Amino acid sequence: MTTIGDERGGLRAGRGEWAAWLALRMVPGIGNILGLGLVRAFRSPHAVFEARDQELQCAGVRREVRAALRRFDRWREVEAQLARLDRIGGRLVTWDDASYPELLRQIHDPPLFVYVLGELAAADAQAVAVVGSRDASPYGRHMTAVLCEGLAGAGITVVSGLARGIDAAAHEAALRAGGRTVAVLGSGIDVVYPSEHHRLHMRIAKTGAVVSEYPLGTQPDAENFPARNRIISGLSLGTVVVEATERSGSLITAQCAVEQGREVFAVPGPVGARTRGTHQLLRQGAALAEAADDVLREIAPHLRARPAPADRAANLSDLETAIVAQLDAVPRSVDEVIARTGLAAGTVLEALLVLELRGVVRQSPGQCFARAIGSAAS
Amino acid sequence: MTTIGDERGGLRAGRGEWAAWLALRMVPGIGNILGLGLVRAFRSPHAVFEARDQELQCAGVRREVRAALRRFDRWREVEAQLARLDRIGGRLVTWDDASYPELLRQIHDPPLFVYVLGELAAADAQAVAVVGSRDASPYGRHMTAVLCEGLAGAGITVVSGLARGIDAAAHEAALRAGGRTVAVLGSGIDVVYPSEHHRLHMRIAKTGAVVSEYPLGTQPDAENFPARNRIISGLSLGTVVVEATERSGSLITAQCAVEQGREVFAVPGPVGARTRGTHQLLRQGAALAEAADDVLREIAPHLRARPAPADRAANLSDLETAIVAQLDAVPRSVDEVIARTGLAAGTVLEALLVLELRGVVRQSPGQCFARAIGSAAS
Repeated sequence: MTTIGDERGGLRAGRGEWAAWLALRMVPGIGNILGLGLVRAFRSPHAVFEARDQELQCAGVRREVRAALRRFDRWREVEAQLARLDRIGGRLVTWDDASYPELLRQIHDPPLFVYVLGELAAADAQAVAVVGSRDASPYGRHMTAVLCEGLAGAGITVVSGLARGIDAAAHEAALRAGGRTVAVLGSGIDVVYPSEHHRLHMRIAKTGAVVSEYPLGTQPDAENFPARNRIISGLSLGTVVVEATERSGSLITAQCAVEQGREVFAVPGPVGARTRGTHQLLRQGAALAEAADDVLREIAPHLRARPAPADRAANLSDLETAIVAQLDAVPRSVDEVIARTGLAAGTVLEALLVLELRGVVRQSPGQCFARAIGSAAS
Repeated sequence: MTTIGDERGGLRAGRGEWAAWLALRMVPGIGNILGLGLVRAFRSPHAVFEARDQELQCAGVRREVRAALRRFDRWREVEAQLARLDRIGGRLVTWDDASYPELLRQIHDPPLFVYVLGELAAADAQAVAVVGSRDASPYGRHMTAVLCEGLAGAGITVVSGLARGIDAAAHEAALRAGGRTVAVLGSGIDVVYPSEHHRLHMRIAKTGAVVSEYPLGTQPDAENFPARNRIISGLSLGTVVVEATERSGSLITAQCAVEQGREVFAVPGPVGARTRGTHQLLRQGAALAEAADDVLREIAPHLRARPAPADRAANLSDLETAIVAQLDAVPRSVDEVIARTGLAAGTVLEALLVLELRGVVRQSPGQCFARAIGSAAS
């Protein structure tokens, strides 16, 4: 710690390492991927600064980057960031921190660290991103509210981008349901944008977390948003897009989720400009989400609010129940089912086709029917 | 014609055969599939009635059905149907008629004949079914109108079921766009249901066709509708479902389309009871349709497939070609195909099922297979 310590003066334990992390990311030519490679090779960011030129060369670091490391002299800026972070009550969660989110760690290009206002909790391991258009319709806001209240109610952390429209509705709904929510910004965590979200920003920081990889004071520059979006999807088991125009940034978040191997959901809605993007996602294979249950079923079956079997079984009409009662796992001809139920052929056939569509029964060739495996009615 | 002629009296040319078709379908135990098998075996429905008992026995006709054929004495009813058909200006389009729709001919259980008010035109070979809820929302009606005007404008015939709601909106829009539309009824073509569709019924008959396989005077019994739905999808290159509740009959039409190897489209909309069925179809892989273009894009390959049969044939693997070479227009049991190809039973069966899904072969009851009519490989 000598090189750095000299410049920093007396810091609390851990702060020395924070300074080295911040500094490493400020070195020209060192991004998240190279930075992480260096930290892994030298065991700490601090050790990267202390490494001899030959060691860096052996680790494959290019001449210009080695020179930039040697020349690095922005420790005062680093110190200013840390002092400012202290003042706003924030902290740095670095790659080697136990509270660095495991899901984020798994993406291709995880941030070396994130600035956090509030706390990233263990519960945030079960997070879902809900994003969408800034220019949301009342329908979009309503669907967001219903979805996020359901997710939060099931103990899922709602991740979003604190933008106007769908994002704000997502955070608000999670808070209203008493759940956790995480806002990932394309600005510094101390820069509130849009300004009318000042109170919402504070409420999220109080019970959840406001997160960013950008230095304090960074303005919300449009070019930060694509990179920000990878953190939104990266923190989440799945990303739900509610209303998105054809060029919406939410589609970038969805694309990030796909690249990260996470689920993508889209909420359908009335055909129009605001659903052009979501319907395109559905065409491309996104899962269709009408409610929180559709999301939970895919990503966290154990968290489903209502037990599926009772739910499905309860939806059977008396007629359907009578027909299903005549079926078991071995396919039976429709004629036999008709004979056993004593109902009209057309009635039985129609009911069976509907039950098949609902996944309660399955049809085999030759108009034979059996109970679907795993069906509620079985 | 002696047996029948005596009862019928002096009829116009062709009417004698119509009588035999109608009569054949009225014989207890003879449905569309057996009826068609008999007509193929004996060359005409008339010849079926004239066949000797031993000939019928050799053709595999069960004792009760042979007895029913011998005993058949409802020629006066047949004659009454034909007189009534004459009065309303309708006609019968029988299986052997050049104007019997080719797409309908290809389904598993085509009707032996349909009653028609109006005309089935050559242009109806390019038809799309548009169906949906009786209890349609203004949104559903609007989407139906936009879609059907687009389809009709592109020269596509719009097929539907003349029910309230989406069906009526589909027919109306096609007529408004100056296009052709075909209504398939679950009642006789002379029974207007619901009664407020009287004018619509007449307008469709005037410029398109009102079609049914049910005798004149048949009331719209609920149990007729599933069978009616297979004709709606069977006449069409694809079926578009606009708004459908979870138990909507439109889902049966969609299921028929899938079984017939035709495309299924669903129109998304605001989450709610009226879109539960359409969104479920999207989950199951239906193509998402926002506009007529989405439908046209998908069914275009089918349209192009007509002048270029080599297209489909070229897609057959060596194994598939070897199997198809053992098939012709008359269904052959799978055991015979296995024996002729000398391939493993499982291999042949699997290939046949895939070929069936691709519309190259068609399956008859009892695991018999034939080349699909109009298939490239035939």
